[in-house]
Amino acid sequence: MGLETLFAPQRVAVVGATEREGSVGRAVVENLLATFDGETVPVNPNAESVLGRETVPDLASAGDVDLAVVVVPPSVAIDVVEQAGEVGVENVVVITAGFGETGSEGASRERELRDVAEAYDLNLVGPNSLGVIATGVGMNATFGPDMALDGSISFMSQSGAFVTAVLDWANDRGIGFRDVVSLGNKAVLDERDFVRAWGDDPETDVILGYLEGVEEGRAFVDAAREVTDDTPIVLVKSGRTEAGAHAAASHTGTIAGSEAAYEAGLEQAGVLRAENVQELFDSAEALAGQPLPEGDGVAVVTNAGGPGVMATDAVGDAGLSLASFTQETLDGLAEELPETANRYNPVDVIGDADVERFAAAIDTVLGDPNVDACCIVSCPVAVLTFEDLAEVVVEKQAEHGKPVAVCFMGGDSARDAMGTVNEAGIPAYFDPARAIRSLDALREYRDVSQRTYDPPAEYDDVDREAAREILVDAADRGETRLGVEAMDLLSEYGIPTPEGSVVDTPEDAEEVAESIGGDVVMKIVSPDILHKSDIGGVRVGVPDEEVAATYDDLVQRARTYQPDAHILGVQVQEQLDLDEGVETIVGVNRDPQFGPLVLFGLGGIFVEVLEDTTVRVAPLSEREASEMIDDVQAAPLLRGARGRDPVDESAVVDTIGRLSQLATDFPAILELDVNPLVATDDGAAAVDVRLTIDPDEL
Amino acid sequence: MGLETLFAPQRVAVVGATEREGSVGRAVVENLLATFDGETVPVNPNAESVLGRETVPDLASAGDVDLAVVVVPPSVAIDVVEQAGEVGVENVVVITAGFGETGSEGASRERELRDVAEAYDLNLVGPNSLGVIATGVGMNATFGPDMALDGSISFMSQSGAFVTAVLDWANDRGIGFRDVVSLGNKAVLDERDFVRAWGDDPETDVILGYLEGVEEGRAFVDAAREVTDDTPIVLVKSGRTEAGAHAAASHTGTIAGSEAAYEAGLEQAGVLRAENVQELFDSAEALAGQPLPEGDGVAVVTNAGGPGVMATDAVGDAGLSLASFTQETLDGLAEELPETANRYNPVDVIGDADVERFAAAIDTVLGDPNVDACCIVSCPVAVLTFEDLAEVVVEKQAEHGKPVAVCFMGGDSARDAMGTVNEAGIPAYFDPARAIRSLDALREYRDVSQRTYDPPAEYDDVDREAAREILVDAADRGETRLGVEAMDLLSEYGIPTPEGSVVDTPEDAEEVAESIGGDVVMKIVSPDILHKSDIGGVRVGVPDEEVAATYDDLVQRARTYQPDAHILGVQVQEQLDLDEGVETIVGVNRDPQFGPLVLFGLGGIFVEVLEDTTVRVAPLSEREASEMIDDVQAAPLLRGARGRDPVDESAVVDTIGRLSQLATDFPAILELDVNPLVATDDGAAAVDVRLTIDPDEL
Repeated sequence: MGLETLFAPQRVAVVGATEREGSVGRAVVENLLATFDGETVPVNPNAESVLGRETVPDLASAGDVDLAVVVVPPSVAIDVVEQAGEVGVENVVVITAGFGETGSEGASRERELRDVAEAYDLNLVGPNSLGVIATGVGMNATFGPDMALDGSISFMSQSGAFVTAVLDWANDRGIGFRDVVSLGNKAVLDERDFVRAWGDDPETDVILGYLEGVEEGRAFVDAAREVTDDTPIVLVKSGRTEAGAHAAASHTGTIAGSEAAYEAGLEQAGVLRAENVQELFDSAEALAGQPLPEGDGVAVVTNAGGPGVMATDAVGDAGLSLASFTQETLDGLAEELPETANRYNPVDVIGDADVERFAAAIDTVLGDPNVDACCIVSCPVAVLTFEDLAEVVVEKQAEHGKPVAVCFMGGDSARDAMGTVNEAGIPAYFDPARAIRSLDALREYRDVSQRTYDPPAEYDDVDREAAREILVDAADRGETRLGVEAMDLLSEYGIPTPEGSVVDTPEDAEEVAESIGGDVVMKIVSPDILHKSDIGGVRVGVPDEEVAATYDDLVQRARTYQPDAHILGVQVQEQLDLDEGVETIVGVNRDPQFGPLVLFGLGGIFVEVLEDTTVRVAPLSEREASEMIDDVQAAPLLRGARGRDPVDESAVVDTIGRLSQLATDFPAILELDVNPLVATDDGAAAVDVRLTIDPDEL
Repeated sequence: MGLETLFAPQRVAVVGATEREGSVGRAVVENLLATFDGETVPVNPNAESVLGRETVPDLASAGDVDLAVVVVPPSVAIDVVEQAGEVGVENVVVITAGFGETGSEGASRERELRDVAEAYDLNLVGPNSLGVIATGVGMNATFGPDMALDGSISFMSQSGAFVTAVLDWANDRGIGFRDVVSLGNKAVLDERDFVRAWGDDPETDVILGYLEGVEEGRAFVDAAREVTDDTPIVLVKSGRTEAGAHAAASHTGTIAGSEAAYEAGLEQAGVLRAENVQELFDSAEALAGQPLPEGDGVAVVTNAGGPGVMATDAVGDAGLSLASFTQETLDGLAEELPETANRYNPVDVIGDADVERFAAAIDTVLGDPNVDACCIVSCPVAVLTFEDLAEVVVEKQAEHGKPVAVCFMGGDSARDAMGTVNEAGIPAYFDPARAIRSLDALREYRDVSQRTYDPPAEYDDVDREAAREILVDAADRGETRLGVEAMDLLSEYGIPTPEGSVVDTPEDAEEVAESIGGDVVMKIVSPDILHKSDIGGVRVGVPDEEVAATYDDLVQRARTYQPDAHILGVQVQEQLDLDEGVETIVGVNRDPQFGPLVLFGLGGIFVEVLEDTTVRVAPLSEREASEMIDDVQAAPLLRGARGRDPVDESAVVDTIGRLSQLATDFPAILELDVNPLVATDDGAAAVDVRLTIDPDEL
């Protein structure tokens, strides 16, 4: 069911309404009576009226209600929610605490609450929520002290206290909201539902969130990426650091996915991630108020050289560039500005510029086709008031329709002027770096909104049944960790492996070696011996005549090393010319929140010493697989650095895509490392593999 | 001459004082009359009085004057400064513009000004300065609109407009200053002089600066490092990015040193570098108001879980750690807090905490020996006012003497409370991340202040004269770019090189090869052939019997490749076992501002593809050379990663130190690359070298 009536109810019942001073039930009713355009219905069987409104004894007696706000004790709350379902209330906000956040008894109560809500298909916010605000209908259904101002930012928060903090601060700054939701324990509705609802809401320009975890990672990614085409999402996802993750877990009981998974997943979803509260709202203000820049060229117009340089440094730090002006612009500026001014970008109109000169320069640069955005920087000077300049900025921004950010470098003297431009949706700060960053948020979102989302790559030449059989066979043998004997699994998914097979007699070894031709590689195969090289269990460059003896020697070594090891045999493998190729690694592991993650990097020191790897949430589109190669610092080594032939990147991308599909097809695959995947100028081949499976998932 | 009388004058003359409305001369006199504790003497030969003060016609008639502020036109300014010198004025602030910032005529005028000032040993600020403020004597000798509040921050700025901006903003925020200097064109006094003066001033707690360039890099590093033992220096050095550097150069005409040089030099000097204005003042507030933490353990005390997690994330981002409480603290918190609270760090006193509960928790954690600093986070709640909490914070901070930062997460409701803690020197912000960063600035400066500065390493076994002869000989031959023939230069500075020498007959080649024994490496030696390998001019593993033929072949190839090349001969060199070693690179180049810079990295892909290198300003102490190895990401490869023997790091450090000394001893060395320097488990040897010299510097 959609959430339209949650955010635009006509009648709201407060179950647990009371006049008791300091109570949550009183606060909610007071807030609704003070703000709500619709009708507030207090529900209380023990009082005739609450704050002058006649009560009803229960929801059944309340008539048509679009939203029930529940503030009764936890022991009663489930019955109330059940009644809401019975009488056809669509939306419930459970403010009551004492559920999952309080231990095992609360957790079981929360499961019960979820079951009831699902049975009646209720839109349930909470429990343990501060409540919900919807400025469209003037509804403050929270027990917090502040109502939000009108605006186009919709905001959800996993911390109710943070909602009160943000409202207090935002009201002071003049920042308004569309809808505000305190998510509480997310027993039913979670971030995904609100992202979808606000993505469909034409009045929401920006979606903001403070989250400590995401309930279902992959599903959230899919939902968010559809929304981010049209509506920017900016999130603070806390618990980024080890210390923070630990604190978040003890705060909400969330089992957090790994930070790497969040980073990858949110990026794949096109979600902009803010590191802190300031970044969150700076981005939101710009996105809510300004158009997106067409290109990356920024003009800086300043009346002071130093701050102009600071702004320019910030342009260099950002994904933006300093625009090169056309000759027409330069000629225009030459006419408008005195000789000592600088008409090249950053334009310095110099300290004696009055508002007319400043306006002329702003107008000229905004008219330049190479200018996609403009940052206006002013220090306090005697010949100009910030307030006059503010009016010019608002006018010129509206005229040219390009994004603008402002830097009024003053204290008290700049306050009103900042208010003026803020009202027109233009961000204003003291610090030039902050103004430029707000333009960079627009650039970042433009890139996201222009991305085309390809579906995950699907390879239809894979043999899923054969692959399953290999996994089932291993599970039947009681094996959960496999080595080279899992190479066939790769083959079934179309991943090239060196010619060869596992044999269990010296004679078979000779036969396989002969059919391969040339020197071969031989490896002991045993689920009990994971580090084959350490016991001399791998031989390279074995000539024909030594194959049989090498077989015996490998088996002998394995027996000596670990007498009770289960030896499956010896793998005899075509010897690839590794000098011709580059060793890479493709790995898969499973995140509790996001499911299978795919890792890519170059082998050896690049993974082990430099940790130069990148991760994506599977399944992957071909574009995403290809971007993984761009991501690693060592990528030039695959692309012909140091005089080598470039490798066949498409073969690497193909392997990444096929492994992503394999991991997605089989939840039983807990970990899978292809190491090395040797990439050459005419392909890529998996030389070794390690696999861990969970038989229960087969 | 010291700058004491510049910042504490008794009589100040304003040369060019006038009553003309809107003039700089009037503004300076007005500012002085409004604020200055001492006597203001207007100098004007054409007026009897200015703003009610009797004028004198010139400095000679002004009696004892400690400081002359010059606002006359540029054509007259030099004469005025000369007169100041003649009559014994020690300090001059030249506000007059029209010098180096305006082109070649101005530049020559500025040189004249400098000569005059130096002839009289004048402390001259400017020209093109906004002026100087010294709150200790209530002196506002600027033409800006604002006087500074009293405080302990001394501030210099290469942008006068930025001074006006900062004062306007700081007055609004209640931030005070000790001295403020607009540096102007830095014709005489520059950042180094003020850093020294403020380092000696007991009333200056923090030195802040906005710089677009440093005049003499190495000298500034030496001056600053002495100061940073006792007084923190925080700088915004703009022109960090390519775009910014270009803008700075056109703004001030500064020839900027490379960003890498600034980064290294400022770090070596112990200067804290702020990336933007917000960071600059956030750091300053903390450093001016709070004690330094003894260790890195931070306690977070919050009344809201979510913001507590945000603060904890910020701890993880910083160089701080979350303190582990003692059992005593945990027991104490258990007594003070309700059961649902979290007594582990971050401590959550939960939303219904009144000021007494909050105070008890703060008191307990500040008393914990594992807690070195504390961040207090509060959301708006009904049971607590920010103002009450502010008083508790001020009291507890003073009682325990540990650094504290505060997060009052509200808007208008938090303003007074922030003012209260600010007055006690405690930083307060909305954003938890900002509060934690201010504590991190204290940690960063503590590390700097505890560093011991070793003198540059000096190797007295070097043969400087022999090295000079090698350079002079090359210059005499007209050669400015040298290859392996410069290996001897390294030897004279005690850097091990493979055995061998350059020969010019096949017979000599055989003789040298024989004396070396075993296979040798042979390389063509010609100043005209820089890329020897490209023409097959390098042979490795040459056995005895092939030495003569190889000699001929190498010479033949060189002649074919470049018929007019000047061929010095062939180098015959001991063949090191490179498989046993790790290839590193040590390079030197010369920065216009900082002089010789030393670069270190691992060879091959690490330098070429990964750009994994580090730079220091020479000369280096042994500690600094050793830290260069720590700096590179690939350092584990020198330390036994992937099963290799660790190399002899001391031999690498030794080579870095000796090259640093070589580059410092000979300004003629423009570039010097030892590539590779092969490090093994029992030493390091320079295998190849490239050198560029400037004969004029010999």
